[in-house]
Amino acid sequence: MSNGTLILMRHGESEWNASNQFTGWVDVALTQKGEAEAVRAGELLIEHDVLPDVLYTSLLRRAINSAQIALDRADRQWIPVVRDWRLNERHYGALQGLNKAETKEKYGDEQFMLWRRSYDTPPPPIDPSSEYSQTNDPRYANLARVPLTECLKDVVVRLIPYYGQTIAADLRGGKTVLVAAHGNSLRALVKHLEGISDADIAELNIPTGNPLRYDFDDAGNVTGKGVYLDPESAAAGAAAVAAQGQK
Amino acid sequence: MSNGTLILMRHGESEWNASNQFTGWVDVALTQKGEAEAVRAGELLIEHDVLPDVLYTSLLRRAINSAQIALDRADRQWIPVVRDWRLNERHYGALQGLNKAETKEKYGDEQFMLWRRSYDTPPPPIDPSSEYSQTNDPRYANLARVPLTECLKDVVVRLIPYYGQTIAADLRGGKTVLVAAHGNSLRALVKHLEGISDADIAELNIPTGNPLRYDFDDAGNVTGKGVYLDPESAAAGAAAVAAQGQK
Repeated sequence: MSNGTLILMRHGESEWNASNQFTGWVDVALTQKGEAEAVRAGELLIEHDVLPDVLYTSLLRRAINSAQIALDRADRQWIPVVRDWRLNERHYGALQGLNKAETKEKYGDEQFMLWRRSYDTPPPPIDPSSEYSQTNDPRYANLARVPLTECLKDVVVRLIPYYGQTIAADLRGGKTVLVAAHGNSLRALVKHLEGISDADIAELNIPTGNPLRYDFDDAGNVTGKGVYLDPESAAAGAAAVAAQGQK
Repeated sequence: MSNGTLILMRHGESEWNASNQFTGWVDVALTQKGEAEAVRAGELLIEHDVLPDVLYTSLLRRAINSAQIALDRADRQWIPVVRDWRLNERHYGALQGLNKAETKEKYGDEQFMLWRRSYDTPPPPIDPSSEYSQTNDPRYANLARVPLTECLKDVVVRLIPYYGQTIAADLRGGKTVLVAAHGNSLRALVKHLEGISDADIAELNIPTGNPLRYDFDDAGNVTGKGVYLDPESAAAGAAAVAAQGQK
């Protein structure tokens, strides 16, 4: 038997989660609460005896540091690490930096939800000269083109082929893989893993800092829906994400 | 021009640095002072405009976390990471866990300095069933044989070929490489880089948390001795390391 286990972890609360701002590719830090969530995630890995063999992260510090804190707690800080921009959060375009409640008030409920949850409608592109643009960020120097905005479909297009070549290969090799990423890059992965339709994915919300487990059979196929290691706090966390935009 | 730059960084103060115990492969955490040293190391990287392109660490959390803290401070937490046991501290054998001052008092100055600084005399081997042995540590599961003790020569033998195949190749490629490691694994590297004799290496002490810079010419040869980014605190730090064993 060489059955893999996949653990998806959204980073702990970030400074802009706390201030209710659209973040996207802006590289904000964790709050103290976010660090505590990451410690708790590490404890959950121990309690459920799922100890990662390899870590994949985005290039953003809220995911990188959440993973490092969780793995340090689980005594697995020494495992190999792969970082890739394809695991980054969705680029939120011109919304990056804006307050969610103010944006909702200014543009109305319908436009707000379209930008947040439509599968294929991206927000307006960010001005490349904006302080919140990543056009000149050295970490993306090797990209042919740094995105100016993305819809969820764009994230699926950049992420799922990468997943197939790297993470899925590790899972077929029987590894336990931890993926530390973001609300929308993980929604893209869950959509793929659970075969969720373009319409239904709008309803899926992923809470911060709560490991979500998928098991795989020896043919490399996922055996069922994802299971949160802490189901109770996951339900409350997902409801809180869904309610964003309220003051 | 594709000249590489190598930055060697010994981890910040660890709990067993603070309590004056032989550490070796025991995986102790940083102290708050050690974390502050790592932040300062990150500031030094910014001030001297040496921003790493790639990170190499040992498998021990005091090096892993020092690097993560320093790189986060320097806004380079997203660079690729390679972790390898060959960068680990020297295995201190049966001395692991013992207090340095008590060991010196019990065995005398001569034996104490022989164990600490002799090039080719290892301490007595650790009992594999000791709580401070790494014989059953999962991170070393792929090693043919987990060491029970090492002298500095053993570290040179395991580390320098690895350095040549990995870090030196990156340097020839023009990269700026950060190596986050330990007092004795860095002594082994400095011995190699500066051509220090087996006898003279006894006198070399490396302070915690102070980046040590080497530049390379376009043929991949080191251009001179290492330069500490903070020379003043380096001198004080090295003197403190030399004085260990005193109460």
